[in-house]
Amino acid sequence: MSANRKEEIIASQKPFQDFYPDHLAHCYGCGRLNDHGHHLKSYWDGDETVAWFTPQPYHIAIPGYVYGGLLASLIDCHGTGSAAAYAYRAAKREMDDDGPPLRFLTASLHVDYLKPTPLGVELELRGRAAEIKGRKVVIDIELSAGDAICAKGRVVAVQAPDKYIVDLVINKPEA
Amino acid sequence: MSANRKEEIIASQKPFQDFYPDHLAHCYGCGRLNDHGHHLKSYWDGDETVAWFTPQPYHIAIPGYVYGGLLASLIDCHGTGSAAAYAYRAAKREMDDDGPPLRFLTASLHVDYLKPTPLGVELELRGRAAEIKGRKVVIDIELSAGDAICAKGRVVAVQAPDKYIVDLVINKPEA
Repeated sequence: MSANRKEEIIASQKPFQDFYPDHLAHCYGCGRLNDHGHHLKSYWDGDETVAWFTPQPYHIAIPGYVYGGLLASLIDCHGTGSAAAYAYRAAKREMDDDGPPLRFLTASLHVDYLKPTPLGVELELRGRAAEIKGRKVVIDIELSAGDAICAKGRVVAVQAPDKYIVDLVINKPEA
Repeated sequence: MSANRKEEIIASQKPFQDFYPDHLAHCYGCGRLNDHGHHLKSYWDGDETVAWFTPQPYHIAIPGYVYGGLLASLIDCHGTGSAAAYAYRAAKREMDDDGPPLRFLTASLHVDYLKPTPLGVELELRGRAAEIKGRKVVIDIELSAGDAICAKGRVVAVQAPDKYIVDLVINKPEA
């Protein structure tokens, strides 16, 4: 994607994750309230979703290449964020309306590592919905560095009642 | 696993990752030479492999629960380490012998998140080989917190020539 188009997207949209309420904004991968985390932010690009991330020098598998766990994390967070955004769009709703909130948790994550992901360049994640059905949203994601697609991921996200999440945070049941 | 058994394992074995040569010891997930990383260490427990990890307070999805990206990372690193260990064992070799080194990269990673993983307890990863065939080793991993299995993972690891990895590190081809 061109730098201009990226700037246009960022300037004109509020990222999906910034619609999350405070009790959902602590995720290490994408929470705005996690001081240590990655702060991944996801946006619409037409009918697809997009996010960008530049790994730190120490996020490596071997010198010069990004470690797979980080790529899995980015795919996971872009996937659940995209799932929520697609669910709102499918319901013809805005993410900040007054209706019942649509929250998604990851049921499963799959990543195919196609080639070593170079360090030192910005990575782009591009998502599209493969399925939106009932409480389930499936997001397919391509992760690229420059022109090379380095990994492909699939996130199966399942809608959870907001009360379930609030109860988890507040009541902390035993494992 | 009992604390005694864990101590016995750690005291009697060198972890798989500590057999990796320096150029493979920088992984954020498990490299002994990565100052910022997780330093995951994997061991034999009979015919299975085991590793332990206690997440940091900020490694959360929502307050009180570990974020899925970290679990995926741990499963990935325990998977590739276990793949190497099983490959050496299948070849009736020691990991530090003088033969050609057996190195594994992740081809694919799959994680099913079964229940929220509580923060504040040590997590245990337990691996077993589902397949050892040619250059491919498939490792199934259960991740548990106390008695609860919180996630199940599958890592498809593929053996890479050591020269391929050395070339990547030294020559850094374009993406």
